[in-house]
Amino acid sequence: MREDPERLEFEIEASDGAARTGRLVTSHGPVATPAFVPLATKATVRSLSSAEVAELGYELVLGNTYHLMLSPGAERIAALGGLHEFMGWDRAIVTDSGGFQVFSLAHGNVADEIKGRRGQKPGGDQGSVLEISEEGVRFRSHIDGAERFIGPEESMQVQAALGSDIALVFDECTPFHADRDYTARSTERTHRWLDRCLAWHDENGPRRQAVFGIVQGGVHPDLRERSAQRVSETAIDGIAIGGTLGRDKPEMYGVLDMTTPHLPVEAPKHLLGIGEPDDLIEGVARGIDSFDCAVPTRLARHGMALAPLPEDRFRFNVRNAAHAEAAEPLVDGCTCATCRSHTRAYVHYLARAEELTGVRLLTLHNLAYTESLVACARDAIRAGRFQRYREAILAGSPPWDA
Amino acid sequence: MREDPERLEFEIEASDGAARTGRLVTSHGPVATPAFVPLATKATVRSLSSAEVAELGYELVLGNTYHLMLSPGAERIAALGGLHEFMGWDRAIVTDSGGFQVFSLAHGNVADEIKGRRGQKPGGDQGSVLEISEEGVRFRSHIDGAERFIGPEESMQVQAALGSDIALVFDECTPFHADRDYTARSTERTHRWLDRCLAWHDENGPRRQAVFGIVQGGVHPDLRERSAQRVSETAIDGIAIGGTLGRDKPEMYGVLDMTTPHLPVEAPKHLLGIGEPDDLIEGVARGIDSFDCAVPTRLARHGMALAPLPEDRFRFNVRNAAHAEAAEPLVDGCTCATCRSHTRAYVHYLARAEELTGVRLLTLHNLAYTESLVACARDAIRAGRFQRYREAILAGSPPWDA
Repeated sequence: MREDPERLEFEIEASDGAARTGRLVTSHGPVATPAFVPLATKATVRSLSSAEVAELGYELVLGNTYHLMLSPGAERIAALGGLHEFMGWDRAIVTDSGGFQVFSLAHGNVADEIKGRRGQKPGGDQGSVLEISEEGVRFRSHIDGAERFIGPEESMQVQAALGSDIALVFDECTPFHADRDYTARSTERTHRWLDRCLAWHDENGPRRQAVFGIVQGGVHPDLRERSAQRVSETAIDGIAIGGTLGRDKPEMYGVLDMTTPHLPVEAPKHLLGIGEPDDLIEGVARGIDSFDCAVPTRLARHGMALAPLPEDRFRFNVRNAAHAEAAEPLVDGCTCATCRSHTRAYVHYLARAEELTGVRLLTLHNLAYTESLVACARDAIRAGRFQRYREAILAGSPPWDA
Repeated sequence: MREDPERLEFEIEASDGAARTGRLVTSHGPVATPAFVPLATKATVRSLSSAEVAELGYELVLGNTYHLMLSPGAERIAALGGLHEFMGWDRAIVTDSGGFQVFSLAHGNVADEIKGRRGQKPGGDQGSVLEISEEGVRFRSHIDGAERFIGPEESMQVQAALGSDIALVFDECTPFHADRDYTARSTERTHRWLDRCLAWHDENGPRRQAVFGIVQGGVHPDLRERSAQRVSETAIDGIAIGGTLGRDKPEMYGVLDMTTPHLPVEAPKHLLGIGEPDDLIEGVARGIDSFDCAVPTRLARHGMALAPLPEDRFRFNVRNAAHAEAAEPLVDGCTCATCRSHTRAYVHYLARAEELTGVRLLTLHNLAYTESLVACARDAIRAGRFQRYREAILAGSPPWDA
C-alpha cells in the first residue's frame, strides 16, 4: 500500500464490527462508502443519462477497458477530453482492466459461473482468445474480428488515456473450473503483472489516477492468503477482490472470509462483479467498501424489479400476469421516480410491450433500490446498529424500514 | 360545430395571414397553438417518462385507440383510473379513432404511401382485415390473432373508457391508390360514421371529452370541399384533416389549400400524421393549429437527428463516420439537454453501439427541436413576422435564429 492523498484518500468515519463507513476522495470528488458502483460499460449506464445517475445519488461508475478500447478506442476518447468529458459525467470513474473480459473469452462466461449458472450460452457476439502468455493475451475483437493484444502495460495505457480516477491492474480472473495448480500459477502471474502495471503507471500514468491491485487465488485459502499479502505489499492505492468466488453464496462469503482478514484494515476494498442485495449486505459485514455489478441494470432489461423478497433472490418479474392489474407501486414505500409516479400495472404493460420506457423505469427503480440499500447501511453503521440492519434486510425488510 | 366551453375552448390570440396562435383549453389544461403533438402510441412517448415530455414543453400527446384496445385493453386502463392516470400524465391527451390502423391493415401502410414511400414492407407483426362493412371493420389482432371488431360506436366507447380530452371520430383513411369512385363512397360512409360517433357520444360519452370530426376526400378538390362542409355542419368541437395527402409535399400543401378555406375560421384544426419541419411551417401558414407525427421519435430510433438542413429533409444520420470525432453538439446553438451536455461523437458512438441511451438522447433532441419550431412560430405570429420566419426556416435557419 502507498498513501498518496493526491491520488486517493480513504477516510473511515465509523466502524461497526468489520463493517465501516467513510469516504473515498478521488480526483473527481468524494464517494460515500460502502458504495454500489453502477456499470457504464459502454460509457453509459444503459438507458440513463449521466445526470440521472448523479440524481440517483451515485458518485462513482465503472467503465470497461475492453469495450472502450475496441470501440470507440481509447485514443478517440482521449482526443475528446477523456472518459468523464466523453460521457458527460463529472464525478468519479473506476475502470476495470479488461482482464475479466478477455479471459472470459477463453474460459467461458465467468460471471455466470460465479453465480452458479455454468453451461449457459454466452450472450452476444463473442471474440476469441488466440494466445495467453507471460506477455499478455492475444485475442480477436468481437467487433471487427481484428487481432488485438492486451497485457499489463496496454491495459494501464488504455486506462491512462481514458483518464479514470481509479485504474485496476491487469489480472487473470481464474474460473471455478480451473484446478488448484492452474489457479496457483495464474495467481503468481497476476502478481507479476501487478508489478508491471505499477512500474508502467509510475513512469507514465496520470499523476492523480489511483491504482487498485487485485487479489486472486480461487477458492483456496492458502492461495487467497498469499495473494492478499503479496498485493498488500505493493505500492497500490486500494485492493479489489476478483476471480471465482465459488459455486454459491456460502462459498462466496467463505472466500471473503479467507481473504479480508489478510488485507490492511485501512485499505479501501472493492468486491468485483457482486451486487445482489444479500451479497451487498454480507460484503459490507466483512469490511467491503465498494461493489460493482450488472445485476440492477441487467435485471431491468429482463423485466425484473428488485424488492425485499429474500425467498425470491430479492426480485420479481413484473411481466408476470399477476401484476397486470396491480395499482400499487413496484415496492410499497419506495420513493424512486418510478414508484412515485407509476403503478406495477403500467410497468407490467410497458415491459411486456418491450417499450424502452419500461427498461428505463425498471433501471431507475433497481438503481434507486440498490443505492437505498447501501445508503441505509451507511446510516446503520454510523448508528452502531449494522447487525440489526443486516438481519432485517435478510428477513425481508425494505432498506428504509430496516 | 358546437361551442361548449366545458368540453373545449379555443381562443385565437393573434393572426398573421392564415397563420394564427392561440390556446386550446382542454379538461386537462391549456395547449398553446400551433402545437406539435408527440405520439404516445402505447401509453408512453418512446424512451421518455411523462415528466420529461412535460419538461420539453409539450402540453398534449396522442394515444392510439387501436394499440391500447388490444393491449392492455380499454377496460383495464379504465379500471386503473384512465389513460392519464395509467401513464402518469396530467396534461391533455388526444386519442385517434383506430380507423387509420385498421384500414392500414387492409390498404397497406398508408403513412408510408402519403410520404411517397409506397411499396415498403410494413414493419412489425401485422394483423389482417377480415371484412369492411357499413357497420365497421372486422379484423384479426396482431397481438394474439383473435378476431375483433371496431366501428364508430366501439371506437367512441374505447376512447370514452380511456378518458382522453379529445376523441377523434372513426373514419376510413383513404389511400392514394384508391380511385375517385372508391374515395367518394368511402368519404360518404365516413360522414355517416361521424353522425353515429356523435350520436353515441351525446348519449354515452364523458361530459368533458371533446370530439373532433375528420375531413376526408383524397386528392379531389370537390370531395374535400364537400367533406369539409359536411363535417363543419355537425356538432363537433374541432376538425382534423385525414386521408391521403398526395404523393409528395407540393400535393400535400395542395390538399390543404383545397380543404382549409372551406372550414370555419374559428374551428381548431388538426393535421393528422404530419410533422416534418417544413410541413409544420407550411401547415401553420395554412391555418393548421396542431399536428401529430411519428417523425421526431421514429427518426431517433434510426439514429437520425433533426437539424436546419432543408436540402437533407431537415435531418442527418449521426451514425455516419463523419461524426465519429465531432466535438460539437448535434445542432449548434440548440439548448436541448442532449446538445447542452454531449458531443456528436458521443451520440454517434451510442447510436452505433445501439445503446438505449443513444435513442433517448436523440429523442430528447428531436422533440426539443420540434417544440422549438412551433414555439418560435407562435412568437413570430404574435409579432406579425411569420412570413419571414417561414422563409428563414425553409432556407435553413435554426428556429431560434429565424
